[in-house]
Amino acid sequence: MGNVIVAQSGGPTVAINASLAGVIEGALAHHYDRIYGSINGIQGIIEDNILDISGLLDSNPNFLSVLKTSPAMYLGSCRYKLPNLDSNNQVYSTLFSQFEKYNIDAFFYIGGNDSMDTVEKLSAYAKEINSPIRFVGVPKTIDNDLCVTDHTPGFGSAAKYIATTTMEVIYDARIYKAKSVTIIEVMGRDAGWLTAATALARNEYCPGPDLIYLPETPFDKDEFIDSLKAILENKNNVVVAVSEGIRDAKGQYISATSTAADGFGHAQLSGAGKTLEYLVKERLGVKVRSIEVNVLQRAAAHLSSLTDLEESVNVGKKAVEFAADGQTGIMTIMTRISNSPYEIEYSFARIGEIANEAKPVPRQWINEKGDWVTEDMISYLRPLIMGEPKLNFDNGLPVYAMR
Amino acid sequence: MGNVIVAQSGGPTVAINASLAGVIEGALAHHYDRIYGSINGIQGIIEDNILDISGLLDSNPNFLSVLKTSPAMYLGSCRYKLPNLDSNNQVYSTLFSQFEKYNIDAFFYIGGNDSMDTVEKLSAYAKEINSPIRFVGVPKTIDNDLCVTDHTPGFGSAAKYIATTTMEVIYDARIYKAKSVTIIEVMGRDAGWLTAATALARNEYCPGPDLIYLPETPFDKDEFIDSLKAILENKNNVVVAVSEGIRDAKGQYISATSTAADGFGHAQLSGAGKTLEYLVKERLGVKVRSIEVNVLQRAAAHLSSLTDLEESVNVGKKAVEFAADGQTGIMTIMTRISNSPYEIEYSFARIGEIANEAKPVPRQWINEKGDWVTEDMISYLRPLIMGEPKLNFDNGLPVYAMR
Repeated sequence: MGNVIVAQSGGPTVAINASLAGVIEGALAHHYDRIYGSINGIQGIIEDNILDISGLLDSNPNFLSVLKTSPAMYLGSCRYKLPNLDSNNQVYSTLFSQFEKYNIDAFFYIGGNDSMDTVEKLSAYAKEINSPIRFVGVPKTIDNDLCVTDHTPGFGSAAKYIATTTMEVIYDARIYKAKSVTIIEVMGRDAGWLTAATALARNEYCPGPDLIYLPETPFDKDEFIDSLKAILENKNNVVVAVSEGIRDAKGQYISATSTAADGFGHAQLSGAGKTLEYLVKERLGVKVRSIEVNVLQRAAAHLSSLTDLEESVNVGKKAVEFAADGQTGIMTIMTRISNSPYEIEYSFARIGEIANEAKPVPRQWINEKGDWVTEDMISYLRPLIMGEPKLNFDNGLPVYAMR
Repeated sequence: MGNVIVAQSGGPTVAINASLAGVIEGALAHHYDRIYGSINGIQGIIEDNILDISGLLDSNPNFLSVLKTSPAMYLGSCRYKLPNLDSNNQVYSTLFSQFEKYNIDAFFYIGGNDSMDTVEKLSAYAKEINSPIRFVGVPKTIDNDLCVTDHTPGFGSAAKYIATTTMEVIYDARIYKAKSVTIIEVMGRDAGWLTAATALARNEYCPGPDLIYLPETPFDKDEFIDSLKAILENKNNVVVAVSEGIRDAKGQYISATSTAADGFGHAQLSGAGKTLEYLVKERLGVKVRSIEVNVLQRAAAHLSSLTDLEESVNVGKKAVEFAADGQTGIMTIMTRISNSPYEIEYSFARIGEIANEAKPVPRQWINEKGDWVTEDMISYLRPLIMGEPKLNFDNGLPVYAMR
């Protein structure tokens, strides 16, 4: 056998290193000679910034187990988009001479939509020049918006973190008797999957958010204020979850159309949460605050979903299996067999079906009024957040792997 | 024996319910007849909104163990300040007739500075009317700024959360090669204890923040920009931790004096982190973002310090012991015997020494330049974040107790 090379790209999730570990374990199982890592995505191959992962494994026997629960991206990332094949083939010949130099049989790219675009272009170029190198994508994104696959590695952990912090924010909001509104802004420019996960915070010991707004349905400020007024009549502390990408009926981002922001002339400075905070202050005059969960939702490896981490490892392993079987231009996908008991199947899809497409929340999984999600959504989400990995702590802090 | 009543006040910490559990366990151990809880601090006594905790314990045997790891305040909170004794004694006679009605021997108030002020006033009034009721304070605050005690319950867990999330933010910041600055804003208007805890994120697998600014030393914008420039020459991703309360040499809050905010004429809208984000963008033109850790630092019960929780329970238990011994007008305190092995002693101090005073970070625990902390600070902080409690998860989420 020859060698394999793996790289990571796009934004972080807490499970993308688990997929890296999965690719490594898969490559070991399939007896590839050496395993290389490209630093900062595909840029590392172009710039010859290559890590000898096989050497690393020899010198550090605990490496894989720590890697599986480490946040962000061990190999670093990039936002590098390959040019179209016809326009400029220089970078392609550079890449393929590098593959030759390192005797690469298969390249694995762990990433989101843009990374899948790269996998597709490389496999197409390989076909053109009759190269036998296989190119396989390993999905990841906290946004859960990749097509064809039931869900994406990294999403379950982010959903678990979001649901937990939503609970904790609700506990925090309830301590005072004075009327108050708390707005939680969750990542998701175009898809509301992660914001929908705040619904999991409704259980026997937590009322959950009162209102949930996703980008998939139009947001109406007057209706929002009316809903708040109605809820505030019956309870003191209202908690609202919104996607950063909520839009009005004309498709304009709420974050860019706020009254308050208009006043400054610097609309881009306010997120959706801040914008609604100003709106509530102005219209209702109650105590209001907004909380932007920020990068923690993609970086909080101290609270991840064991289901997500295990699947992320498997998705990486499977990618190697498919490559060893001769597949190229594909991505590992998961298909759900059942919710209860939760069961999924791993297979692959042609990259062409996936790259540059996004999967929104289906309209029928949002309630009619567009301010909560349905039971189908809850049943879909629940299995993805189940289980907690055993984390190692040292000196009071979780142990992570940094290059 | 008669009965006891306990209440919680001020802002939440993740350990304040552990102290409530401690008071309850102490009251059981000292064979008080019944244990009552006042809802929303002292307001519950005034409004006769009283919870029968003894009854709760009978019906729910797991209550105390879940309570110990539950966030926020099980009994609710208030921001109620008692009037001075001479000015208006109506509320005092209301309170004491309530104490009589419930046959109260001792009142325990878990809270910060304001709550200790209440304990002091009630014990003074009791003395005036020759009431035998004991009033004992149980400290809590994530700010760690109470005098006399070595540290405050709740601080260790917040410090652990801050150190962990700082690590995770640093991991997140390092994935791209492009130069970037990340600013983490930590709670602490007047004292920098919690921001200092970001220093714990420097270890063998994490470089830690590059700069740390506390309210205790004057912040100079030009020096800050010069420091960033120097660091950016040698590394790509700079991470800065700032207290929300950093001030310039004239004592003006940075959050209120920003160039950017001046431009809007709405200075109050920008926190310290946002203000510095604008400053860096303007002066250095590199990619910059600010992260406000927000309420999670006081509410994230999913990541607490076992040392802190155990001490919080003990501080509550000791308060009951002291009251049973006849003490009143006091607060339980902790004295540190040694850092390594970590050892503390519980005792009490007169409330007069504590209430309405704040404890800043000593200047000698901050480096000369005012942009990092010393080894003494690290040695002080480290033991407080040690250990992780066993959390129960159900359906993928931590189990908490809500009233």
